[in-house]
Amino acid sequence: MTLQTWVPVPEGSDFPVQNLPYGVFTPPRAQGARVGVAIGEQVLDLSAIWAGTPLGADLATGSLNRFLRRGPAEWAYVRERVTALLTTEDQRRLVEANLYPIDQVTLHLPVEVADYVDFYASEQHATNLGRMFRPDGAALLPNWKHLPVGYHGRSGTVVVSGTDVVRPNGQRKGPQDPAPVFGPSVKLDIEAELGFVVGAGSAMGSAVGVDEFAQHVFGAVLLNDWSARDIQAWEYVPLGPFLGKSFATSISPWVVPLAALEAARVATPVQDPEPLPYLVEKEPWGLDLRLRVELNGAVVSRPPYAGMYWSPAQMLAHTTVNGAALRTGDLFGSGTISGPEADQRGSLIELTWNGRDPIALPDGTTRTFLEDGDTVTITASAPGADGVRIGFGEVSGTVRG
Amino acid sequence: MTLQTWVPVPEGSDFPVQNLPYGVFTPPRAQGARVGVAIGEQVLDLSAIWAGTPLGADLATGSLNRFLRRGPAEWAYVRERVTALLTTEDQRRLVEANLYPIDQVTLHLPVEVADYVDFYASEQHATNLGRMFRPDGAALLPNWKHLPVGYHGRSGTVVVSGTDVVRPNGQRKGPQDPAPVFGPSVKLDIEAELGFVVGAGSAMGSAVGVDEFAQHVFGAVLLNDWSARDIQAWEYVPLGPFLGKSFATSISPWVVPLAALEAARVATPVQDPEPLPYLVEKEPWGLDLRLRVELNGAVVSRPPYAGMYWSPAQMLAHTTVNGAALRTGDLFGSGTISGPEADQRGSLIELTWNGRDPIALPDGTTRTFLEDGDTVTITASAPGADGVRIGFGEVSGTVRG
Repeated sequence: MTLQTWVPVPEGSDFPVQNLPYGVFTPPRAQGARVGVAIGEQVLDLSAIWAGTPLGADLATGSLNRFLRRGPAEWAYVRERVTALLTTEDQRRLVEANLYPIDQVTLHLPVEVADYVDFYASEQHATNLGRMFRPDGAALLPNWKHLPVGYHGRSGTVVVSGTDVVRPNGQRKGPQDPAPVFGPSVKLDIEAELGFVVGAGSAMGSAVGVDEFAQHVFGAVLLNDWSARDIQAWEYVPLGPFLGKSFATSISPWVVPLAALEAARVATPVQDPEPLPYLVEKEPWGLDLRLRVELNGAVVSRPPYAGMYWSPAQMLAHTTVNGAALRTGDLFGSGTISGPEADQRGSLIELTWNGRDPIALPDGTTRTFLEDGDTVTITASAPGADGVRIGFGEVSGTVRG
Repeated sequence: MTLQTWVPVPEGSDFPVQNLPYGVFTPPRAQGARVGVAIGEQVLDLSAIWAGTPLGADLATGSLNRFLRRGPAEWAYVRERVTALLTTEDQRRLVEANLYPIDQVTLHLPVEVADYVDFYASEQHATNLGRMFRPDGAALLPNWKHLPVGYHGRSGTVVVSGTDVVRPNGQRKGPQDPAPVFGPSVKLDIEAELGFVVGAGSAMGSAVGVDEFAQHVFGAVLLNDWSARDIQAWEYVPLGPFLGKSFATSISPWVVPLAALEAARVATPVQDPEPLPYLVEKEPWGLDLRLRVELNGAVVSRPPYAGMYWSPAQMLAHTTVNGAALRTGDLFGSGTISGPEADQRGSLIELTWNGRDPIALPDGTTRTFLEDGDTVTITASAPGADGVRIGFGEVSGTVRG
């Protein structure tokens, strides 16, 4: 039976009752951030629904962390209860009194980020970058098909959608430069990614199995891993990206729970060679998401998530196989999502082939990399229960000089 | 005039009254961690000294973060006041009532770590590793003398001295292996480092100048960046170290404030080529520290910090030059400290030249890398005010299989 809610949900909304993503917001003319779920064009204040209880206290805070720490049984209980409240007349007056139009609330960074790890899980993206940077060598490095390559990023500069991004200064050195020069990045780029939010931690010295993904990961966000390619190219050997990535990483304000993505689960592409046993999935955790990247309102790319070589369950198992602990609030990014087609690439360096092929915008201008004032907005769709469309809201940011 | 305290301080103690390092401890048979300073063989409970005040509340918590957030003027005030309490008869009975023998308290991780960054600032270390891993190329990479190379590590696995380290599992692939194999690391190593603790944060989009170091950094700890060389070697291209480092990083329980290290400040070695202006120090922030590395009680190395090519002020300026924000609790490591002599190298991979030259221990055994049950302890000395010796306590850890 298809779920029906009495809350008005416009056709094509990102937030049907089958979605119920979590965010942190402050109502208009109110004090105090609190946890809510999006339904249609409104957000329901969960702290009010559970007011006076310990759960209510954990929902009356400026991040999802205290709720997430309660673990998967509690996540399931709250989702079930909120679904009931929105689909029956039970306590309708209480619910109605605590719905706010999303366009009138202030949305905050939903999670206090603990550790942020970014992966590199798209074969097309890794191949494209390999071709550009190592034209004489193999596009994929020897380790790439044996493990999900990843690295730690800066959690302190993860910001919520809508935060301006200041163009970073840094060192760069082109092949013709006798010495590095200093100044604002001239190759400011985006990376369209999906991010995964860890809810339940794990003990140091133990590994989280590839089949334990849903016991630890709560949900997914859209993520834009802003990248200064010129800074990155000069600094990254041998210890990896640092200042080329650490100035800002934007995420969407809504965390879509894994429970809303059941209908989107697909197998990853065939993995050849077969990975080591700790990376072999028993159940598929690939996701049939379609992203859309807009630059100043014009769609410049439609990256498909379903083709990602490594699944998020594999990324999580890899992250902990050495005994590294997980903490509530850990965030890991998929890496740039790029499909096989030219208009499915999730970064400008790929879309313009490192600036060789500028893209034309409807206003008659062209772009190789981002200019000051440019706004990048990423959205996504996934199949949901009952044949509905699950959306993620958006992650958006404008470049400031 | 030489400072004198009425608290007994044994000859050669790490903690004369000129030091006063900060830690977090729980007294014997008591509940609740709180902030203290070490003096001689005792720790003074600062939360009791300021009981009933807002400062006292910030000192009655399980990390230094709330105290650190108060900023450098408050750090100076508290240091001045504690010095007065320990060197005059003023309130001596209150102070005596709140001194606990260090060997009877439980010492905790002193800081809730925000972002952890590790650098690579020793020219000898970078040269040694370059020679081993790129025997046919230049030992130092082109960027190394232009910027302090660094990367983000895992803050969630930073642990306090005394925490056992579980030997990590992971993938490794030797040149003869047709495919990677999985298992416990067979090249478990240490890296003897100094860590710096950020007390006062900075705004995103702005840079912290090289001359603003002491306005943001509170103090220093000893740090052991445990490293699985075999896992690292297979995974680290192109995004840098990940699982080879993320399983554990140990720090000493005592944070020595910069104020105690004034007499230890020295210029860094001559930097040629001269770095870009944002990295040019007006005042020296090199430090004349001598470390000592013990393996199962035998001294295996004495790394000198004074020879480090990049100073911590340069590392901090570099970290923020792209606009990345600092937060209270950010921790950055110097990278392995290695001097020019064979017995001054801060890692086993250097001391044994990647296993070629095993080191002999007094018990008749030899080591290339760490075996289960091995204990590594790092200590350090610096010149303090009044000609005294400033110590750091120790960072110690034992390998569990």
